[in-house]
Amino acid sequence: VEAQDADQLNELLEPLHAADVADLIEQISQPERVALVELWGEGIGGEVLSELNESVREPLLEVLPPEVVAEAIRDLDSDDVVELVEDLEEEQQSRLLEALEIKDRIGVEGALSYPEYSAGRLMQRELVAVPEDWSVGQAIDFIRGEDEDDLPDQFYHVILVSPAMKPVGYVTLGRLLSSRRQVPLTEITEPSFRTVDVTEESSNVAYLFNHYHLISAPVVDENGRLAGMITIDDAMTVLDEEHEEDILRLAGVDEDSSLADTVWQTTRGRAVWLMVNLVTAIFASMVINLYAETIDQMVALAVLMPIVASMGGNAGTQTMTVAVRAIATRELTRRNAIRVSWREITVGAINGLGFGVVMALVAALWFGVPMLGAVIALAMALTLVAAALGGIVIPIALERFNIDPALASGPFVTTVTDVVGFFAFLGLASLILL
Amino acid sequence: VEAQDADQLNELLEPLHAADVADLIEQISQPERVALVELWGEGIGGEVLSELNESVREPLLEVLPPEVVAEAIRDLDSDDVVELVEDLEEEQQSRLLEALEIKDRIGVEGALSYPEYSAGRLMQRELVAVPEDWSVGQAIDFIRGEDEDDLPDQFYHVILVSPAMKPVGYVTLGRLLSSRRQVPLTEITEPSFRTVDVTEESSNVAYLFNHYHLISAPVVDENGRLAGMITIDDAMTVLDEEHEEDILRLAGVDEDSSLADTVWQTTRGRAVWLMVNLVTAIFASMVINLYAETIDQMVALAVLMPIVASMGGNAGTQTMTVAVRAIATRELTRRNAIRVSWREITVGAINGLGFGVVMALVAALWFGVPMLGAVIALAMALTLVAAALGGIVIPIALERFNIDPALASGPFVTTVTDVVGFFAFLGLASLILL
Repeated sequence: VEAQDADQLNELLEPLHAADVADLIEQISQPERVALVELWGEGIGGEVLSELNESVREPLLEVLPPEVVAEAIRDLDSDDVVELVEDLEEEQQSRLLEALEIKDRIGVEGALSYPEYSAGRLMQRELVAVPEDWSVGQAIDFIRGEDEDDLPDQFYHVILVSPAMKPVGYVTLGRLLSSRRQVPLTEITEPSFRTVDVTEESSNVAYLFNHYHLISAPVVDENGRLAGMITIDDAMTVLDEEHEEDILRLAGVDEDSSLADTVWQTTRGRAVWLMVNLVTAIFASMVINLYAETIDQMVALAVLMPIVASMGGNAGTQTMTVAVRAIATRELTRRNAIRVSWREITVGAINGLGFGVVMALVAALWFGVPMLGAVIALAMALTLVAAALGGIVIPIALERFNIDPALASGPFVTTVTDVVGFFAFLGLASLILL
Repeated sequence: VEAQDADQLNELLEPLHAADVADLIEQISQPERVALVELWGEGIGGEVLSELNESVREPLLEVLPPEVVAEAIRDLDSDDVVELVEDLEEEQQSRLLEALEIKDRIGVEGALSYPEYSAGRLMQRELVAVPEDWSVGQAIDFIRGEDEDDLPDQFYHVILVSPAMKPVGYVTLGRLLSSRRQVPLTEITEPSFRTVDVTEESSNVAYLFNHYHLISAPVVDENGRLAGMITIDDAMTVLDEEHEEDILRLAGVDEDSSLADTVWQTTRGRAVWLMVNLVTAIFASMVINLYAETIDQMVALAVLMPIVASMGGNAGTQTMTVAVRAIATRELTRRNAIRVSWREITVGAINGLGFGVVMALVAALWFGVPMLGAVIALAMALTLVAAALGGIVIPIALERFNIDPALASGPFVTTVTDVVGFFAFLGLASLILL
């Protein structure tokens, strides 16, 4: 396809959805991308650009002339334009903004004045609002009279505003269509109505949409006046990103990483976490070193000790993951924290005793020392209780100190389980066996 | 509040959103829940029931008389009713179905005939469809003429159907409202139009909605005829559940688990994974046991070997999580699998050499044996390359065999990293040091 045949390229890509074209561009290599985009040039639409992954999009925006980009993004709703420009470097951003029409530019600059990851960045300015004292007929005539370009690409509600431009309710288009013309709009508003502050964090916005099954929500500025609107597809994207972040953070991977990153970006992103892990692992080894003499006298301890640590690490990760998720979904709150902690500790104790007994039999049979079985059983039970305690208390504590539990819980929890595991097993062994 | 004062209870709960009432019920203990529901009785709405977590809802449905439940769910859209009944036991299900009106019952039974987690279960039967040759005016008059109860609670599109009831396109209500009455509907259909097969897996449906930014999609039966409609809020719920499942599965937690489960349910859910981990940990210990004599001669090996294994485990988990996510989001495909694998292996080699050098210095200084440093550096590099290889190849292979990589990758990857880590470190030590 890369035979410099622009016409054929256009023909092939034309029928595809923007999201699919973006996927295609992401799957090819960087030089191919540049070649494709330079060849395609003006054909590239704003929608394709806004579907692209950030790490792929930025280098491409540098290649494309600003006029082409400005032309491409002209038809996008303001929230998509904001998403596209917000991560650009200063200079590139201002060049692009200058190429926009003045009205669009003011809107985008306004959105950029709100903090990153806030409702202000997420919202679009295109919306349909009417005075609260209008009737169904007036609203319908108003929508009919509007210029196509002034209406949002997609809209599902008509927002009712007070004379001071404060949103007071909304009406779904379905209700609007099925009601008689003389009905006042205030009579058919939806009970689910909720406004969002312009400074609200986008993760909270996504939670609101998911929790209350909202389709769209008006955004209000610090004075309670209507500033924009957020729609469910934006909330769904945020929710998706949040999940992605959580899952990657729990595994100790840089949450902005993508398959399209270079080797060097990836190496650095992973190294941070491995460094933290190296320090905690050395710390655990120092515990083992305390009992070097004990191990010297009974090498079976060295063979068995990773089992205790590994079971502790796994049980701790289980509890921690459940706790981190429950905090994110707000199922775990101050009110039920103690009850949930007790439950986790009980579960840890039961599994600890159960697997302790199993492991005791394995160890006693393997090495022919019954007391070794008793030691490993006891150590296993202690470690699994510590794992449960650490797995629930650490995320809750981090949350209280406003640290993201998904990001930081991992190393703390494994340190606790490793240290307790090695201490319990080797300590008990030195006391009982030698 | 539990002073048997039903009126006061009603007064307190009345103004709350159903989702909040459900949260409140989930946070209190089981006996309190039963007391509250029995006291509240008929006041409980279908929406509250459908917001409740499954493990909380089922015992409550047993307490409530079927007529009360049937009354409560009468106003729900058919997809919510299906969700509510599908997990009930046979007998309870049929009692509830009998209490429904005949028309609703046929609809629910029809949906239940589709496989679990399929589009057929997810869809609602309430929708607005009109013949494809109608004009804007005809469609508006039709919606106006419909009885309030026959329209869906929320709808955003009018679906155009052929005479054979096959959906051919849809029109947003916004376009409908802003177009002139005589415009034919076929002129203002949305390009994003996509139908979903009734047997399509719900996770694929969620992917479609997220990928193409759909708001609603018509569902067609095996003959291509319109069977129902799925809306974005259902897709968002599925997406949320899928993520939840992935994150829990990666950590080895039963994906149906919830904070509201009993101690016993939780213990069993966790034990399965711990059992798998115990077996793999014993396997790794057998590798250590091969080198028991080597350790006996140099106890520093026992002190340092968990560091190699731990770094390998972490690096493996990082790569594996990225791979599992990329498979789920369809970023990792057959086409780029080899390129991505190479990248991961390169990253593993670079980090392996880097941390190997760091650890060599630490080990050499700690134990005063320079060659020990060389051994650990080499072992670390080998282990991190194996971790990268295992972390990417295992999820891809599982996916090919149609096994959920999120569920099964973990134990395989840690077994690989543990075994390679211990083998490399102890094996090299026995060759070089002794």
